[in-house]
Amino acid sequence: MSNTQVLFVKRPIGLFNPRETFKIVKTPIPTREDLKNEEILVKIRYLSLDPAMRPWMNDTRSYMKPLGINDIMRGNAIGEVIISKNPQFKVGDIVLSAFGWQKYAVSNGKDVVKINPFPGVSISDYLGVLGLTGLTAYFGLFDSKVKAGETVVVSGAAGATGSVAGQLAKIKGATVIGIAGSKSKCDWIKNELGFDIALNYRDPDFVGQFQKATPNYIDVYFDNVGGEILDLCLSRLAKNARIAFCGAISQYNEKKIKGISNYPALISNTARIEGFLIFDYQSRFPEAIRDISKWLKEGKIKRREYIINGLENAPEGLLKLFKGENTGKFLVNVGDDVKAKL
Amino acid sequence: MSNTQVLFVKRPIGLFNPRETFKIVKTPIPTREDLKNEEILVKIRYLSLDPAMRPWMNDTRSYMKPLGINDIMRGNAIGEVIISKNPQFKVGDIVLSAFGWQKYAVSNGKDVVKINPFPGVSISDYLGVLGLTGLTAYFGLFDSKVKAGETVVVSGAAGATGSVAGQLAKIKGATVIGIAGSKSKCDWIKNELGFDIALNYRDPDFVGQFQKATPNYIDVYFDNVGGEILDLCLSRLAKNARIAFCGAISQYNEKKIKGISNYPALISNTARIEGFLIFDYQSRFPEAIRDISKWLKEGKIKRREYIINGLENAPEGLLKLFKGENTGKFLVNVGDDVKAKL
Repeated sequence: MSNTQVLFVKRPIGLFNPRETFKIVKTPIPTREDLKNEEILVKIRYLSLDPAMRPWMNDTRSYMKPLGINDIMRGNAIGEVIISKNPQFKVGDIVLSAFGWQKYAVSNGKDVVKINPFPGVSISDYLGVLGLTGLTAYFGLFDSKVKAGETVVVSGAAGATGSVAGQLAKIKGATVIGIAGSKSKCDWIKNELGFDIALNYRDPDFVGQFQKATPNYIDVYFDNVGGEILDLCLSRLAKNARIAFCGAISQYNEKKIKGISNYPALISNTARIEGFLIFDYQSRFPEAIRDISKWLKEGKIKRREYIINGLENAPEGLLKLFKGENTGKFLVNVGDDVKAKL
Repeated sequence: MSNTQVLFVKRPIGLFNPRETFKIVKTPIPTREDLKNEEILVKIRYLSLDPAMRPWMNDTRSYMKPLGINDIMRGNAIGEVIISKNPQFKVGDIVLSAFGWQKYAVSNGKDVVKINPFPGVSISDYLGVLGLTGLTAYFGLFDSKVKAGETVVVSGAAGATGSVAGQLAKIKGATVIGIAGSKSKCDWIKNELGFDIALNYRDPDFVGQFQKATPNYIDVYFDNVGGEILDLCLSRLAKNARIAFCGAISQYNEKKIKGISNYPALISNTARIEGFLIFDYQSRFPEAIRDISKWLKEGKIKRREYIINGLENAPEGLLKLFKGENTGKFLVNVGDDVKAKL
């Protein structure tokens, strides 16, 4: 029995190569004797894969310090406390934190949250719809002050955050247009999630379809992708449009970011682009979790998980995320003995 | 004696050619008999030349309808009422409105404002520091909620709006960095207007100078130019930075707008770009005029005018504006018998 850890070993330029960027190592599983006071040992069950992981690899000024070479790959995870020297945690507690890409994690309990799923949700939901991805959708969309009757566009609409953002906009009474990268994704967001329109950006006539779908232009654009779709949306802004700028996944693996040219339309439409980070909303998490939980129970928010098995497959999984292979929340099932639910 | 009017006769692509874009025509001066009830005849004294005039020429969706072919060129002007059939105006009143590029204008009095200069200001100031340019600086800067001690960058800093925006930021106690296109402009904003730092973007080492000048990054960027300088500022954003997006003069004569690539920094710095138009602030004009007037009297705001003579020279003048030949407010002295003051 040993621990498995995935180390970040080489800073990529452009598209990362999973085998070069990461290295899988075996280390001893820490024992009770290895733990200091206040520390806990957590057996990881699920790992969250997120687009932001790619920018973390760059050695540039950002909201977090860049990953260091040979660091355990950073990432949110959920697991079970199996040894505790911290009075706040007991064996069996299900806990969430940025435990990183490893099967067993030692933590001093700081920034560790205990999870108590209510009926109808699984623990993995706390990495998705009830976790940072869902909360990101909540604050990004609602701080854009979307109103009933407005036109809301969501890119990455079949992803973990976009799928929730679109449903929240529907709850607010907006007309919601989702943009995704395959017919099956479009079918899901339209037929199951209730988006009004779903457009596949890989369709040859996507631009024409998009223009036709936005006769009253766009009041709110929840942007997960940046790039050409952002530029297209800039050409279709309504007066006082708000762009909630959540992510730019289309550009994260580019050696050179493709510029956006339609930005002067921000002036003529008195519109704004505003970047946001979920970490700035921590004091308001309880309010968001309360609302999302309620809508989950009422069936107003649905979600899907895309789960791969085995920590060893996380590096390849991250690449699949950037290729858009997932619908819904991308998770790695780390625990050998845990089966994904929902 | 005849009227002179400048017509917009050909929609330019890229850089406009004054002789092709405009046509100067002579028409009869309207007489009392030509005027309908409520109409006034105004003899124009000053015409304002503004960067926004170039986008008005494009046949694209914008905040105003595009100029029509053979329209009298649109523009704000100040003149004197010489005939009045409108009880709200009397002969001799000095009035401001979008009278257009002509020596004599007929108006029904709608959207015409009477001007009463106080000591120390000239009527032409109502096209500049006390007019839409000054008000644009006021609302763009103050709605960015600039605070004492913050770093404010202003581009087009020696222009009509930028020069006021920078002085307003100084009044608020910010550290102000102005970007302009010549040494003499830089000298003016630094030595006479009190900017903390003035940088000439034509210097070969401008980017290095700019980075050195922003060790604490940028809290507010008042952008008049768009393009490469906007992209540079995006690379230097502080947490929660606000970009007041006023204009993009660098791109208005480009056939193809050069994209900005550093926009993902809006996410990592939770920053925003917000476009604004002065027309949306009309209800708050009195407050702004009161404040600016006070600061003018106190000598806290200074201004300069760049005046060319003769309506016939307005088309070439507009080209000079885009070449950056002016320091301060660009005006055309239309009245043969009027000398520019200040």
